[in-house]
Amino acid sequence: LEGIASPEEITIVLWGLGAMGSELAKLIMEKKWIRIVGALEKRPEHLGKDLGEALGLGKNLGVVVSNDPETVLRDTRPDVVLIATSSFVDRVYPQITQAMEHGANVITTAEEMVYPWTKWPDVSTKIDRIAKEHKVTVLGTGVNPGFVLDTLVIVLTAVCAEVYEITAVRINDLSPYGPSVLRSQGVGISPSAFEEGVRQGTIVGHVGFTESISMICARLGLKLDRIEESREPIISKTHRETPYVKVSPGNVAGCKQIARGYVNGKPFITLEHPQQVHPESENVKTGDFISINGRPSINLSIEPEIAGGIATAAIAVNMIPTVVNASPGLATMASLPIPAAVLGDISRTVSRTKPL
Amino acid sequence: LEGIASPEEITIVLWGLGAMGSELAKLIMEKKWIRIVGALEKRPEHLGKDLGEALGLGKNLGVVVSNDPETVLRDTRPDVVLIATSSFVDRVYPQITQAMEHGANVITTAEEMVYPWTKWPDVSTKIDRIAKEHKVTVLGTGVNPGFVLDTLVIVLTAVCAEVYEITAVRINDLSPYGPSVLRSQGVGISPSAFEEGVRQGTIVGHVGFTESISMICARLGLKLDRIEESREPIISKTHRETPYVKVSPGNVAGCKQIARGYVNGKPFITLEHPQQVHPESENVKTGDFISINGRPSINLSIEPEIAGGIATAAIAVNMIPTVVNASPGLATMASLPIPAAVLGDISRTVSRTKPL
Repeated sequence: LEGIASPEEITIVLWGLGAMGSELAKLIMEKKWIRIVGALEKRPEHLGKDLGEALGLGKNLGVVVSNDPETVLRDTRPDVVLIATSSFVDRVYPQITQAMEHGANVITTAEEMVYPWTKWPDVSTKIDRIAKEHKVTVLGTGVNPGFVLDTLVIVLTAVCAEVYEITAVRINDLSPYGPSVLRSQGVGISPSAFEEGVRQGTIVGHVGFTESISMICARLGLKLDRIEESREPIISKTHRETPYVKVSPGNVAGCKQIARGYVNGKPFITLEHPQQVHPESENVKTGDFISINGRPSINLSIEPEIAGGIATAAIAVNMIPTVVNASPGLATMASLPIPAAVLGDISRTVSRTKPL
Repeated sequence: LEGIASPEEITIVLWGLGAMGSELAKLIMEKKWIRIVGALEKRPEHLGKDLGEALGLGKNLGVVVSNDPETVLRDTRPDVVLIATSSFVDRVYPQITQAMEHGANVITTAEEMVYPWTKWPDVSTKIDRIAKEHKVTVLGTGVNPGFVLDTLVIVLTAVCAEVYEITAVRINDLSPYGPSVLRSQGVGISPSAFEEGVRQGTIVGHVGFTESISMICARLGLKLDRIEESREPIISKTHRETPYVKVSPGNVAGCKQIARGYVNGKPFITLEHPQQVHPESENVKTGDFISINGRPSINLSIEPEIAGGIATAAIAVNMIPTVVNASPGLATMASLPIPAAVLGDISRTVSRTKPL
């Protein structure tokens, strides 16, 4: 049963049982070196159920879904709390703090936590201070932000004597996603409704450009002047359809989002993330593309793009041993040892005594 | 002048003024945050000359080339010694030790030092112990081994929930290289002379497969059973020519080297590195290719391949601040924070007090 951990296993409380939380739970259950000892979710339909039932696994796991974090954290004293409840710092900050105060490390898939220092400097300072007081480490990660358009870019620059400009593009397919993601990207609506949605803030698109650009500049030792960001509708020429949305020709198939980070008054980093349903219907190939204009220049392609949901769950889980072993504080992917898949049984090699 | 460092600059002694040492020297001179305070080379033609003259720069740098490491290390007390004298651990080990005993961190481009634990476990243990005694850090790095076929592979696996098998291929062009590299790859000779050279050990090919495969397995938490390695001649169908070699049709254009790392009795990592002069003459496209069969699978291409010489110099220089700040001991690219280009003036942010 998940709930009962051996002394060698890293114990996890999972906070949030939405799409990402469920993916995380299933992945953790495959791994011998980690164990879920608690599950938190405020939506009433899961409350009091066994986690296995809540996830639709048809078996009990010995972990009851609760909406009482104080009791769960106190009773289970987990090594790590995995938080997958929101994209935004102001939403996850109280949860992170509560976990830290119970002596738990935190990994969150909240996009803004990948590099919270730019948008949320005061909150970041507080998280860093509380983490150090409690000798725990806090990390935000995911496939993007957290990997494709930032960590991977940073790592590639390591073989460059000079970097003049960086362009990175992630072209993906929104077809597998549910109604809330499709709505936040404006899929299926008219171009004018899209423009209105961008103005009103209901069409958010991708959350993470500020975080990715800031993290790259910070790691490369550059002072970022400013970031410019735009969201344009991808107008469909074809009829496109998913179980959740129909797109007529002339309406919006997705959102093309572009952000530009300026250094010394000039564009230094351009990130593009056109997201749409059925890109193949207009012969758009999906992929991740990084182009570094430097000495040497580097042109990287990953085709198709690294698959979203499973990759975010994987990197969050793979970072667990690194976070457990890391120096206390608010960490980023750019401050920690190089990330890697955890394939063996690593529990024996994880020290629970933090350095410094 | 190079020889006089401000208190904020990281000071470097460069050991070895061959092709790589010269590339390193020129790169360091471009950077404001590091300064060469000593240069060591045993070849007599450079001895007693100013480093600028030895490098053919037509100006003096205020650093005299010496063959007396003891005096140079004692008088200059560098933060880091950069060693580019040999590919092999038994050759660089005494130099590394001498540098450590003078309190210097070490970065070397010696291929076997990228992950010396497999071929040289006792020497590795000794280096690690001496490094900790003197509170310094030792790192081997380069474009390959050190980056393309190991560090980059490791980083990519971070978004994988499972990795079933890894294949990585680096196809490059030997045309820019000089006679010693061409000879070690068997370029220009007959197929039978090639076979004989492989038997005699004069055709070494690429040094680094054992190191790359071992480092990947170590970081992923897998126990490596064994490595199989082969070297095959690339027989030319065309006439190929460089300033240093002529290849007739039927003779050897280069060396195709393959290594396979086995885990649980099955091939887990295959690395291929076909190196030849003028691959374009038979429509072979150069590039770096990484294919991970996993969940998700990842197919990465970098075309053309990351340029060799400058990339090795760049990563060695870019790792300097990380090594200066790292915990003492024998480090690897897989144990240190993610690498990155150093673009700003980072000297102020480098702490010379080592953690733990």
